[in-house]
Amino acid sequence: MPKKRFAIRRNKLLREIKKSGADALLVSGIKNVTYLTGFSGDSSYLILGPKLAVIISDSRYTTQIEEECNGIDVLIRKRDQPMLESVSEVTKKAKLKKLGFESHLTSYRQWEQLQSEIKHLELVGIEGSVESLRKIKDAHEIQQTREAVYQAEKGFALLKASLHSEMTELQAAHELEHAMRKFGGEKAAFDPIVAVGPRAALPHARPTHQTIGSSDFILIDWGSQTSEGYKSDLTRDLTTGKILPKLEKIYKVVLKAQLQAIKAIRPGAICSAVDASARSVIEKAGYGKYFGHGLGHGIGLDIHEETRLSAVSHEVLKPGMIITVEPGIYLPGWGGVRIEDDVLVTRDGHEVLSSVPKQFEESVIR
Amino acid sequence: MPKKRFAIRRNKLLREIKKSGADALLVSGIKNVTYLTGFSGDSSYLILGPKLAVIISDSRYTTQIEEECNGIDVLIRKRDQPMLESVSEVTKKAKLKKLGFESHLTSYRQWEQLQSEIKHLELVGIEGSVESLRKIKDAHEIQQTREAVYQAEKGFALLKASLHSEMTELQAAHELEHAMRKFGGEKAAFDPIVAVGPRAALPHARPTHQTIGSSDFILIDWGSQTSEGYKSDLTRDLTTGKILPKLEKIYKVVLKAQLQAIKAIRPGAICSAVDASARSVIEKAGYGKYFGHGLGHGIGLDIHEETRLSAVSHEVLKPGMIITVEPGIYLPGWGGVRIEDDVLVTRDGHEVLSSVPKQFEESVIR
Repeated sequence: MPKKRFAIRRNKLLREIKKSGADALLVSGIKNVTYLTGFSGDSSYLILGPKLAVIISDSRYTTQIEEECNGIDVLIRKRDQPMLESVSEVTKKAKLKKLGFESHLTSYRQWEQLQSEIKHLELVGIEGSVESLRKIKDAHEIQQTREAVYQAEKGFALLKASLHSEMTELQAAHELEHAMRKFGGEKAAFDPIVAVGPRAALPHARPTHQTIGSSDFILIDWGSQTSEGYKSDLTRDLTTGKILPKLEKIYKVVLKAQLQAIKAIRPGAICSAVDASARSVIEKAGYGKYFGHGLGHGIGLDIHEETRLSAVSHEVLKPGMIITVEPGIYLPGWGGVRIEDDVLVTRDGHEVLSSVPKQFEESVIR
Repeated sequence: MPKKRFAIRRNKLLREIKKSGADALLVSGIKNVTYLTGFSGDSSYLILGPKLAVIISDSRYTTQIEEECNGIDVLIRKRDQPMLESVSEVTKKAKLKKLGFESHLTSYRQWEQLQSEIKHLELVGIEGSVESLRKIKDAHEIQQTREAVYQAEKGFALLKASLHSEMTELQAAHELEHAMRKFGGEKAAFDPIVAVGPRAALPHARPTHQTIGSSDFILIDWGSQTSEGYKSDLTRDLTTGKILPKLEKIYKVVLKAQLQAIKAIRPGAICSAVDASARSVIEKAGYGKYFGHGLGHGIGLDIHEETRLSAVSHEVLKPGMIITVEPGIYLPGWGGVRIEDDVLVTRDGHEVLSSVPKQFEESVIR
């Protein structure tokens, strides 16, 4: 099995660890462990330094780690042996003096315990070093995201074909997850939003027992997750009854904003500028105060990753980033429109990974 | 709406806060916020003291909090305003001097930020105070758990009726979640385990593309989650081919162990003693070293809650606790058997909440 990509990622991280002055990093975030080793289980830590790479796990995962993590040492804890005791064991054996820990993922309590368990070494908080690497997707991750988009799109097409007015928001959400699984999805990337009419004004509406046919339009925000954990995240709006002129007007503003923002995506672009390129369209149309959230976010092993398209982010886009672009207009009591696609930053611009039709005419279903 | 139960829970917590010497507690664990307020969203904190109860959230949840959280003040953060800045605002306005924080749920980095943001007050780490209350379920929570068990059982019956030898582990797992939703389940309480033959030797096996008919038995570990977030957790083993004498023998040992442990459950019983009552049966049969995990755990808003039936837990059972009882025997390369039910500790003993047949003969499917 070509597991070279994990070694490459670990080598990149080692450079960051070296810069921090630590002898090794205790990686406790499970998504970070997965990213660096390929291990797909839970409840496991990785200690990584120039001369050591050890996964600390328990007997439930012995076989799985053997299968998934070539070339990494494993310490299987005994039943009832605390994790931090095993961490101490590894650091002593490796004669470490300064151990980095993920300060944003380690609880204050764990830090206290670590301090008292590991009196022989100095602890240094390191924030977000693995997450920084995770921002730039490698070829395999891009392929995985394409697959997650494919699963989401096929599932959506199947749901669309089976929608009827008596179906509830909840039933539609459940059918959608079931449909994505038919195309290889492991599960929904997050609980899908299916929001009828006025409920679409709530950007995070939970599906209810309201029926699809009880209003003239619905908003659906959904994504799929591959077996390796990579995610897609899309939003479309469908008209299910009369075509309201107000809806058409708002829809076209949001679509124009989204297309303009996508056009602005290229290496070197500043996140706040991309956000502004969508926001300016919505502001000019007079709906500025009804677009209350950021324009988009990174996706990958997590559904919300670090790169944020927002007014306060001065981050610079780089090739390999995959971000959502999702402007919206929400009118309390009336409803909302959001259009969301997943976009890869390429060497010379961008590639929109998703291709669900989004011209207003195409959103009409009967 | 009768939301009195949330006020009762908050009052109980206030007594604990008072004991700790803090003026108020910053509740940052979202399940704990849900437990104390009824709020079902995300990304929100609660500050609770004798004279204040404030939820800090953002504009996505304005309407939802109004609907769900009677009698609690709300602070909606402005777009891009950091959470901890709002926390600081509330503590200043309330003239707090000593603020408790959930040290097991607050990251070291958040604690650092809190320290620098809130220089006017002293921080005191408080561990697990809400989780301690959550161990004892009130009448509403018991009702919710019954519902979660009902959804799991009905879903399992439907899956059992549709199992066939060409179905894969993955398909069966997906069908099971879909089936539980037909009976009102919001989703699976956790990713179901469907493990064929030798794969059943892995206590946390992930479903694969292997077909149900490729071995003589399968292990299924599943549960449902209600719309309010309460969970069930069950395991059954089904024979799909020839009834192997070895399987029958092991099954009967595990069943005997489970029934003996359930019998030991009553108020006042020590967790380690309940664990021992199952473990002794398995040890006597010569399989002691093949039962590598604890006997059970609390369930509720989380799938693994604090009360642990394990050899090292000296906790005493109390009425209102709901725990799983799940002994198992796992023979590497051959397969495994586990039987799991959800048990309520009552005033004078226990009640098994789940009722899926588990006599060996009844588990046969064709």
